[in-house]
Amino acid sequence: MTRWKLLLEYDGTPFIGWQRQKYGRSVQQCLEEAITSFSGETVCVYGAGRTDTGVHALAQVCHFDLNKPTKPSTIRNALNFYLRLYPIVVLDVTPTLPTFHARFSAKRRRYMYRIINRHTPLALEKGRAWHIRHPLDTSKMSTAASFLIGYHDFSTFCNTSKQTQSPLKTLEQLHITHSQHSITIHTAAPSFLYSQVRNMVGTLVLVGLTRWKVEDVRTALTRRDRKAGGPTAPPYGLYFESAEYE
Amino acid sequence: MTRWKLLLEYDGTPFIGWQRQKYGRSVQQCLEEAITSFSGETVCVYGAGRTDTGVHALAQVCHFDLNKPTKPSTIRNALNFYLRLYPIVVLDVTPTLPTFHARFSAKRRRYMYRIINRHTPLALEKGRAWHIRHPLDTSKMSTAASFLIGYHDFSTFCNTSKQTQSPLKTLEQLHITHSQHSITIHTAAPSFLYSQVRNMVGTLVLVGLTRWKVEDVRTALTRRDRKAGGPTAPPYGLYFESAEYE
Repeated sequence: MTRWKLLLEYDGTPFIGWQRQKYGRSVQQCLEEAITSFSGETVCVYGAGRTDTGVHALAQVCHFDLNKPTKPSTIRNALNFYLRLYPIVVLDVTPTLPTFHARFSAKRRRYMYRIINRHTPLALEKGRAWHIRHPLDTSKMSTAASFLIGYHDFSTFCNTSKQTQSPLKTLEQLHITHSQHSITIHTAAPSFLYSQVRNMVGTLVLVGLTRWKVEDVRTALTRRDRKAGGPTAPPYGLYFESAEYE
Repeated sequence: MTRWKLLLEYDGTPFIGWQRQKYGRSVQQCLEEAITSFSGETVCVYGAGRTDTGVHALAQVCHFDLNKPTKPSTIRNALNFYLRLYPIVVLDVTPTLPTFHARFSAKRRRYMYRIINRHTPLALEKGRAWHIRHPLDTSKMSTAASFLIGYHDFSTFCNTSKQTQSPLKTLEQLHITHSQHSITIHTAAPSFLYSQVRNMVGTLVLVGLTRWKVEDVRTALTRRDRKAGGPTAPPYGLYFESAEYE
């Protein structure tokens, strides 16, 4: 048996997210079906980050086990053939240790969030970025973002009360860059709470719109209550960028 | 009567190109219908560059005349409302001189061509860039591109024999940049022949693949015969970037 590690790019638009659900098509399901189609084996695929409905991935990491010995390039080409009708692409396939787990071995996740800040709607970037019509003050957003860096209780930015894990997380990066109308937010942490990135972005946008003062973000964080935070940013601006392992 | 200058962004995928045709939907037709819907006036819209089927625009320039006095922001918002079902967006509207002509007053056009150079297919950039599987030598492509700069007979890179204008053109820029798997070609000229950009890109790609030697591009140019040039690059990698006026 070999454990395989995959890198995946996908357009999240037509999927109900990474994870298999009772209804709707997930990335995980498409991938598992493609693996079965080429290998004849029934597998379970584990992903590094469970992206929500509509969220994209530049390099999602996942793993699965195959009994039959196969070449990495054969797996990559066969999966890309069986996935050709879906916007999912296997970028890379490598054999890995049997102890490797895409989710539990990950030391750091990186996400990117894209905003197009202009008056007029989007033609070319529709479904690829959040369109915000009113001008955003990115300098204020950057200051507010700096308050979230570090070890905190992020309950204010977590969408579910059923969270079984601790709301205490270490946010390592929340960096805002902009070029003309395009604003990009890069973030990194060992792990994130459910919808944490989109909730942080939605809150920073309130600051950018000057509806919130910079200091309000610090206050919201200390409230440890989702109702104290800003809205959830739409999924189509979010990209799972990478997962890092030791 | 006021002459209006518009800046347009569009995703060329669902259109038969800029120009009205007997069959199929063009950007020009959609725009003219939207103008009639909001103003009640029948107009003819003139574009700076007649993009082909599937070619995109970041900032196409066009003009038309309206009898009824109207505010620029009203035109912009009304057109974006009537165009909302199409991937066409009016970025900007300004009143201009009655002597202004989007096509004939343009002193320079700029196009961008995007290539993604990696083994695996595209998920997120599908229809937005030319996917080339085999590694391209961008340094060789840059050298070959430099041979095309200047005043030449570009018949080798023109797709039609019915060209009524002279094949003598001045190419001002043909610049190749790359970052990881993404290759971008920027080009500028007072005007281009039919399919000239896509034919130059298709020819440079032969050099990048080392199927052609760098010098072969110079030889092809001097042949002044379309059959001596490389293939036409696909339309979905091409973007009309801007038109410049005095």
